[in-house]
Amino acid sequence: MHNTATHNLRKSVTSHDVAELAGVSQSAVSRSFTPGASVAEATRLKVLQAAKRLGYLPNLHARTLITGRTRIVGVVLAHLDNLFYPRFLQLLSEQLQTQGMQVMLFIAEGPGNDDLLEHMLQYRVDAIVLAATSLSSSLGKACLQAGIPVVMFNRVSAQSSDRSFHSVRTDQEEGARQIALHLIAGGHERIAYVAGHLDASTNQERENGFRTTLAEQGKAVFAYGVGKYDAATAQAVVRSWYLDRAGQPRPLSLCPDAIFAADDQMALAIMDTLRDELGLRVPAQVSVAGFDDVPQASASAYGLTTYAQPLGPMVQELVELLMAQIAQRNEPMASNKKNKGHATVVPGQLIVRTSTRQPI
Amino acid sequence: MHNTATHNLRKSVTSHDVAELAGVSQSAVSRSFTPGASVAEATRLKVLQAAKRLGYLPNLHARTLITGRTRIVGVVLAHLDNLFYPRFLQLLSEQLQTQGMQVMLFIAEGPGNDDLLEHMLQYRVDAIVLAATSLSSSLGKACLQAGIPVVMFNRVSAQSSDRSFHSVRTDQEEGARQIALHLIAGGHERIAYVAGHLDASTNQERENGFRTTLAEQGKAVFAYGVGKYDAATAQAVVRSWYLDRAGQPRPLSLCPDAIFAADDQMALAIMDTLRDELGLRVPAQVSVAGFDDVPQASASAYGLTTYAQPLGPMVQELVELLMAQIAQRNEPMASNKKNKGHATVVPGQLIVRTSTRQPI
Repeated sequence: MHNTATHNLRKSVTSHDVAELAGVSQSAVSRSFTPGASVAEATRLKVLQAAKRLGYLPNLHARTLITGRTRIVGVVLAHLDNLFYPRFLQLLSEQLQTQGMQVMLFIAEGPGNDDLLEHMLQYRVDAIVLAATSLSSSLGKACLQAGIPVVMFNRVSAQSSDRSFHSVRTDQEEGARQIALHLIAGGHERIAYVAGHLDASTNQERENGFRTTLAEQGKAVFAYGVGKYDAATAQAVVRSWYLDRAGQPRPLSLCPDAIFAADDQMALAIMDTLRDELGLRVPAQVSVAGFDDVPQASASAYGLTTYAQPLGPMVQELVELLMAQIAQRNEPMASNKKNKGHATVVPGQLIVRTSTRQPI
Repeated sequence: MHNTATHNLRKSVTSHDVAELAGVSQSAVSRSFTPGASVAEATRLKVLQAAKRLGYLPNLHARTLITGRTRIVGVVLAHLDNLFYPRFLQLLSEQLQTQGMQVMLFIAEGPGNDDLLEHMLQYRVDAIVLAATSLSSSLGKACLQAGIPVVMFNRVSAQSSDRSFHSVRTDQEEGARQIALHLIAGGHERIAYVAGHLDASTNQERENGFRTTLAEQGKAVFAYGVGKYDAATAQAVVRSWYLDRAGQPRPLSLCPDAIFAADDQMALAIMDTLRDELGLRVPAQVSVAGFDDVPQASASAYGLTTYAQPLGPMVQELVELLMAQIAQRNEPMASNKKNKGHATVVPGQLIVRTSTRQPI
C-alpha cells in the first residue's frame, strides 16, 4: 500500500481525481478529510476507498488554507540537557501524534532565536506550549494577540498581575513545603537553599514554599545562593559555603547540614561536589534534596530525595487544555471573551531516597 | 513592531497590499520572500520596507503550494531518555533555526506511530532525519520514493546491500578499537562486551571493531550479553555474570575484569550495579567503558571512560547534507539520478576517565 501511495503521490493525485473515481463532488472529498465536517457516511466511505486506491493524501498545507488549522503545536524549550524536558517532549509528542498532530520545536536560547515569534506566526501553528523557564511572557502575549492559543508548562507568568495564560504545573509550594518538613524532621539545624532563576515562577514558588515552611517551624534559611538551574553555577555556590577564600575547608559546624536545590540537575551536581571535591559524606554530614525526579535521581550512585513532578498526568492535562483551546479558536465568540487563564495544578509526590538523613 | 505586526495579521495583510504600497508586482513580492529567487536588490528593499510597515508575514503554507518547500525538517527519534539524543535535537534545532527552518518531531516508538509515514508525507516535510536506532529502513525507502530526501544520523542502513541513504556518523569501529586497546593496555585479561540492539548498525560496527581488535591482540571476548541499549537489561546481563543461580557471588577470577558497553547509558547503569548491588570496586576490581560521552559520563560520581561522538561537527555535517539535498531536490535532473548515499564519517575521541584501570 505504501508503494502505491508514494508512487501516485509523485504524479500528484488531486482531490479532483478522487472525486471522479468516487463519483462525488470535490467538496465532498474535502469535507471527508476535514475532522468534524458534515458529510454523509456513505459518501465518506466512497471517498476513503477511492483515496486509498489512488494513494491520495490530502495535502495538509492546502487544507490549512481552507480550515485554518495546521495540526502543528509549537513547543518552545530552552534546556534539553535537563532530563525533565526530554521526557516531557517525548510524552507530549506521543500524545499529540495519536491525535494526528505533531510537535514543532522552537529553541528559545542560543542562535537563531531572534525571530522566534515571526517564525511561529509564519508556520501558523495551531497552539503554542511555552516550557522555557527564562523566556519572558512578551512572546506569549504576542501570540495571544495573533489569535494563537498559548499554554504554559511548568511555569506561570512571572507577573502575578498577568495571569491571562493557561498553565499546567505541579504544586510547587506544596512540594517545597514537604521537602522542608522532611529536612526538619531529619534533625537538620542549618538548612540551605540553592535557587534557580530568580525570575522563573518555578523558583519563586519553590523558594516561597520552602521559606514559609521553615519560618512556620521557627527556622530561617541558613545559607542562600543562586544556582540559575545550572550545574556549574550551583557547584560554585556550594564551594563558597564549605571553603574559605584561601580554599581551605571551613569548620563543618559553620556550614549547612542540609541543602535543598531548586531542581534535581543542580542537586546531583551538588552531590558530586560535596562527595568528590570536598570529601564530605552524604547524608551523614550533609543531606541533599532536589525537585523534579529526573531519571538520574533514582540511580544508585545518587539516590536523590526529591519531589516528583507527575509528568504523565501533567502532559495529559496539557493536551486536554490544548485541544480545548484549539477547538474554541474556531468558535467566532471565543476571540471576544476576555478569559482569565486556567491554571491547572497537579499534585506531585515526595520521594525519600538515601541522600537525606531519615526522620529521627 | 510586534503589536503592529500581529494587529495587521488579523486583518490578513496580503502580498497584494505589499505590492501596492511598494509599487511593484505581486510576483516581485513573492520572489523577495523566496530564498534564492532572482529579484533586483532595490526592488527587494522596497518590498521589505513595505512589508515591515504593513506587518506582512508571508504565509509559509500558502508559499508551500507555490515553492513546494515547507521549511520543515522531520526528525524521527525513539529514545529521548538517552542524553545523547536531546543534545543532538537541541543542536540540530538551533542550527536549522538560523537557516529559517524548524524541526518537526516524530516519535518512532510508542503510541501513534503506525501512521508515521502518512503523517510525514502529509506535512510535506522538506527532508527527514532518521535517528531512531531500531527503526527499519522501510520507512526511509518510502520517503525516498515519495521524493523526500532522507539522511540517517548515527546509523546506516542495516543491510549492507542497501546503502542508498545519506548518513552521518562517528567512526564506530575506530572508537571500539581504541576502547579495546585501552582495556588491553590496562592489563585486563577477561574482557566482556554488552551489546546494544543487534540489528542496529551502531552495535554492529562497535561490536565488530571491538572483536576484531581483541582478536588481533590474541584475545577473545570473555563474556557476551545483549543489553539492547536499555539500562535494566544491561544490569540483568551483568548480574548473570557475577552471581550464580542461587544469587551467590561467583569467584571473581571467573568473572569479567573489564566491561565495554555499547553505549554510555548502559555503562552508567552497569557501574551502579557493580558498585552498589554487587559491592565491587570500579576500576580496582572491574573496569567499565562506554560509548557516546553523554553529559553524565563526566559527572564525578561516574568518571566514565568512553569514546566521544563529536556532536557539534556531526550536526554541522548533517545540516550541510540536508541543505544540499533540499536544494538538489528542486533540480529537475536530480530525481533521475540513481545516486549512492554519501556516508559521512566524523572522527571521535577516546576520553579516559577513572572508570578504567590506567595502562600499566
